[in-house]
Amino acid sequence: MTKDSGFKHENLVSKRADARTFTHFSSSGTEGAPPGFKPHPKPLALHWGMPNAGFFPIDSIDVNLVEYPFQKSLSIPITNASVESFFPDEKSTTGKNTVTINKVDDSKYLDITTALQYGPVAGLSPLLQFTEDFITRVHKPAYEGWGTIITNGAGDGLNKVADALLDPGDVILLEEFTFVPFLKNIENSGGIPVPIKLNLDQESGKELGLDLDYLTNLLENWKTEKPGLPSPKALYVIPTGQNPTGTTQSVETRKKVYALAEKYDFAIIEDDPYGYLSLQPWQKPANTFKLNDFLEVDDYIANHITPSYLTIDTSGRVLRIETFSKLFAPGLRLGFIVAHKRFTKVIENYSNVVTRSSSGTSQLIVQNVIAKKFGGVDGWLQWILKMRVTYSHRRDLLLNQLFESEAYKKGYLGVIDPTAGMFASVFIKFPEGVDAQAKLQLLNFKFQNFGVGVVLGANMAVDRKFSEERATFYRLTFAPANNDQEIIEAGKRFVDAVEDFFAKGLEY
Amino acid sequence: MTKDSGFKHENLVSKRADARTFTHFSSSGTEGAPPGFKPHPKPLALHWGMPNAGFFPIDSIDVNLVEYPFQKSLSIPITNASVESFFPDEKSTTGKNTVTINKVDDSKYLDITTALQYGPVAGLSPLLQFTEDFITRVHKPAYEGWGTIITNGAGDGLNKVADALLDPGDVILLEEFTFVPFLKNIENSGGIPVPIKLNLDQESGKELGLDLDYLTNLLENWKTEKPGLPSPKALYVIPTGQNPTGTTQSVETRKKVYALAEKYDFAIIEDDPYGYLSLQPWQKPANTFKLNDFLEVDDYIANHITPSYLTIDTSGRVLRIETFSKLFAPGLRLGFIVAHKRFTKVIENYSNVVTRSSSGTSQLIVQNVIAKKFGGVDGWLQWILKMRVTYSHRRDLLLNQLFESEAYKKGYLGVIDPTAGMFASVFIKFPEGVDAQAKLQLLNFKFQNFGVGVVLGANMAVDRKFSEERATFYRLTFAPANNDQEIIEAGKRFVDAVEDFFAKGLEY
Repeated sequence: MTKDSGFKHENLVSKRADARTFTHFSSSGTEGAPPGFKPHPKPLALHWGMPNAGFFPIDSIDVNLVEYPFQKSLSIPITNASVESFFPDEKSTTGKNTVTINKVDDSKYLDITTALQYGPVAGLSPLLQFTEDFITRVHKPAYEGWGTIITNGAGDGLNKVADALLDPGDVILLEEFTFVPFLKNIENSGGIPVPIKLNLDQESGKELGLDLDYLTNLLENWKTEKPGLPSPKALYVIPTGQNPTGTTQSVETRKKVYALAEKYDFAIIEDDPYGYLSLQPWQKPANTFKLNDFLEVDDYIANHITPSYLTIDTSGRVLRIETFSKLFAPGLRLGFIVAHKRFTKVIENYSNVVTRSSSGTSQLIVQNVIAKKFGGVDGWLQWILKMRVTYSHRRDLLLNQLFESEAYKKGYLGVIDPTAGMFASVFIKFPEGVDAQAKLQLLNFKFQNFGVGVVLGANMAVDRKFSEERATFYRLTFAPANNDQEIIEAGKRFVDAVEDFFAKGLEY
Repeated sequence: MTKDSGFKHENLVSKRADARTFTHFSSSGTEGAPPGFKPHPKPLALHWGMPNAGFFPIDSIDVNLVEYPFQKSLSIPITNASVESFFPDEKSTTGKNTVTINKVDDSKYLDITTALQYGPVAGLSPLLQFTEDFITRVHKPAYEGWGTIITNGAGDGLNKVADALLDPGDVILLEEFTFVPFLKNIENSGGIPVPIKLNLDQESGKELGLDLDYLTNLLENWKTEKPGLPSPKALYVIPTGQNPTGTTQSVETRKKVYALAEKYDFAIIEDDPYGYLSLQPWQKPANTFKLNDFLEVDDYIANHITPSYLTIDTSGRVLRIETFSKLFAPGLRLGFIVAHKRFTKVIENYSNVVTRSSSGTSQLIVQNVIAKKFGGVDGWLQWILKMRVTYSHRRDLLLNQLFESEAYKKGYLGVIDPTAGMFASVFIKFPEGVDAQAKLQLLNFKFQNFGVGVVLGANMAVDRKFSEERATFYRLTFAPANNDQEIIEAGKRFVDAVEDFFAKGLEY
């Protein structure tokens, strides 16, 4: 289990990615060296076309931090929703909470001289080390020989795994509702997307999300179900806080899916931007947070986040996409991929040719903030716990508006309480015989008229026709609102629009 | 001349790029709206999956700047080479020279709330505006309908123009010695590179660099010279401070090349990372800079930089690649492309699918430093003038070591004095009949033994066989050295190695 399984990746790496190579024109080896050749112990560089750091206009950077989310921007604490009440000492602090990033620093910290210079496409080493330590602490893979590689965020990560896996004509399985921009990456690689049914029926008694029976049956009968298509090369899943449905796969389900991957030899692309934001089941929102909402890091890891597919990966067939977008900030354009080194190597070749290095500026800031201020992996997890509580509270507020509405009491709404992340899916229950898709489009104009933006589930379907029956929901998120009042008001507008729509006989 | 020329780009845009589309699943239009539909004036967002800026751990950022290159790092001012001597007031300043980046700011400045959020792939608007203003001031295109788009640096820009122009089988012309990593982007797009001869013979009396006669003849006789190949779709040039040769095309040459582009209908990819670092002809290095080394911005633009191909582009067929790497810092991974909007639009589609947005962190810092501290376009040019003087001095130091050497006096060396940029090419003059390529390889080990890194010209050839005769040089750069002493010492090691090599009968 803890040794490199010896599993060969030749069937999974795309021919395109495998053929790509890169050697820098400035690199000089010792190949062809004359007898007795000895390199100088302290060579000087007239070769690298890089400006010395003395040319950079920046001497140092001070990053001024907050102690908890919304510390300085919670202008309307209508429901006393900030974490503020539990940081009385920090609240009263008026001084700056500053991390200084130096021009030259100890090797533990990225400095300006290094991070603002040309750097390795795989990522700058202190940040790369952090990603390894972090994964080892939280989601340790069940084999040796894995690695991490820095990306320009999850979007870039997804494009890179598509390139690494898919040749033209290769098949990739996806949850039928998913992060659809990934379809463009698949298209770009020439891959063929095939949707997998989700179970979204709360009355079914079965686990919500990926329909394991459907997947098993499809794989067993692939040749008759999908005549002419090659067997799948990969499965793309958002297993925790799924986008758009908000569902989370149990560990048992993950083990069964992984067994199928072993049996039918496909890779699993695990996209997990929200997994750390695990949410307790919905409860009526309190006026203050409870102290026990703040978990200990050990308890959080052991009992409150669902283990990654990595933790059951004995072969090295899981490619996990991580991002700093949801936990730090999206504009960083920073994330990483965890996978067998066979994959990270071809992705590194791709980066060398196509994207080049990730932003050194973002790597500089994230690494310094986490290492100097948060204090490394566990400190970073403590920041995540503060985020998590804030997201939980926001979810509670939004769903409370729905559950207390007339629309809900009259049975117009079905709500999936998300177990992680930032999305809740809300189903509209139309009477039999109604053209649901047409009505959902129309109701969307009603939402716009009432002043609330939502995403039509159908817009996130891999194949609208395939998913028509189940595409009767909207995706709602409690992430972008400026404050609790906006969440409450947006939820109110949503249910008011639904009530009005039903009152008018499903007409605008 | 100043109107959109009406030139159609259909022949130049690749089919791949043209076919690419992107629509976000969250976008909602008014198509299909019911009669009387009215959107709410102040809608609330439950749709965008973006964390509110209150979740970002950063409250503000203070960027502490230097007043001139090497202000704080010139530990060994052996030749008094810093610009320091001309900033006596600033030198004595001990206080911090700080730009504060705020969580929320005036729309003139990027703020943390905007720049660290998800943002447009074309770039954040205040920085995009700066790039337009900058190009209008320095290299105004000769037609209307051009635009700019932010990139992740020049490497990303090059990959994007390759994708925008080249379908499999399309031909692209390149200077025979060039920035060879671009060949990988061409390969990735399926393009076919064809080298164009450079004139590197200083005794020829002809302009150094792109051999216009060769290019003209090749195009006139394309079908017989390159049987089976389609006529070229694009020409890739580094016209100013060429990498690796250091040569600069005159305006007259540019006009003739442009006329060929019009006649044979190809695009011109103008890669110009170094063009702003124009250098006066070499002079014996002084112990201090002269005050008149610092130009006025108007004089600099009018008389000291060579106008971009953009300024003679009446059709909109020039794609100019800019970068902040050499003038600000490479680790930013930030640059921009200037081109007809027909091109910037397909590049935007590519970015939406493949690379996504550029680093908001880098955009944030660059825009604030330029707008708040340097004071916009002209202030930015004043910073560049300080860089330029420092580079000139470094070039003077390095070449002085070569010119004063025994190796030079004995005729072993030919040196092209660069008119811009950071590279000088140094030719080794072997006796007739010597296997120059073998000797250059061997001499390179001598350099490594003496402790100086250089780049073999042959390593930067598009086609080694084609360029064998002219590949008798090394590329030397004065950019990475930590101080003047290192440049002097590196130059000394270089000439010592050459002398030793010749003294030993061209053996190691």
